[in-house]
Amino acid sequence: MSAKDIFHDAVKHTLEKDGWQIANDPLFLRFGGLDMYINLSAQKIIAAEQDQQKIAVEVKSFVSPSATTEFSTALGQFLKYQLALEEEQPDRLLYLAVPFDTYRSFFTLELPRLLIQRYQVRLIIFDPEEEMIVKWQK
Amino acid sequence: MSAKDIFHDAVKHTLEKDGWQIANDPLFLRFGGLDMYINLSAQKIIAAEQDQQKIAVEVKSFVSPSATTEFSTALGQFLKYQLALEEEQPDRLLYLAVPFDTYRSFFTLELPRLLIQRYQVRLIIFDPEEEMIVKWQK
Repeated sequence: MSAKDIFHDAVKHTLEKDGWQIANDPLFLRFGGLDMYINLSAQKIIAAEQDQQKIAVEVKSFVSPSATTEFSTALGQFLKYQLALEEEQPDRLLYLAVPFDTYRSFFTLELPRLLIQRYQVRLIIFDPEEEMIVKWQK
Repeated sequence: MSAKDIFHDAVKHTLEKDGWQIANDPLFLRFGGLDMYINLSAQKIIAAEQDQQKIAVEVKSFVSPSATTEFSTALGQFLKYQLALEEEQPDRLLYLAVPFDTYRSFFTLELPRLLIQRYQVRLIIFDPEEEMIVKWQK
């Protein structure tokens, strides 16, 4: 299992404050010949629907010198985990958690934006200091 | 620009032996707010069609301890470069060059295979010692 991302705990607290119950830290998946660890899984009861929402969350800090390299890895991981989840836990939606500063400085550029759209990468944009969700982007 | 991949020169020689003329080493692309360097670009005259084929090649060695992490990065990079090429050089086909040993041990597993299919990642499978192309996979 890879080293925990530096914003791992911030995202965990952010989700808990938003009413999510952390289920796995990390979430282990085995599919198609590979073992994988997605950073977190969580669930929440949606009262109006009497239904349980389930998510898996991969946390990315984007603190390395090259945001564009980290973005490539994040995109590839998202698509790999997504395919594995479709097969193993199809009721669980995958999100990529990114800090708001990175979202504003990098994810709003045209190429990242087009890739996020084309490959339907779901984002949780969070404020790591306030431990608050800024936006869910589906 | 990132450090050259250790199989960079082997792929270059492999392409030259196969009749390709190296055009850029590396190929610089600027699109959508990002600067990118794809390892190689090359061209070849196809006599029967009196036409010029153009390719761009990203070389991956897969010598790091985690093939699955390197695969995620390679997949994300491929999709990023592909989108940039579609906009900037739509007549150039992008390929990922992978050594035959890695292809046999890793790319034949179910999850990598499904991802390569779903996202239509074109591969040049090469023998780095013989500097020969084993297979083009479109």
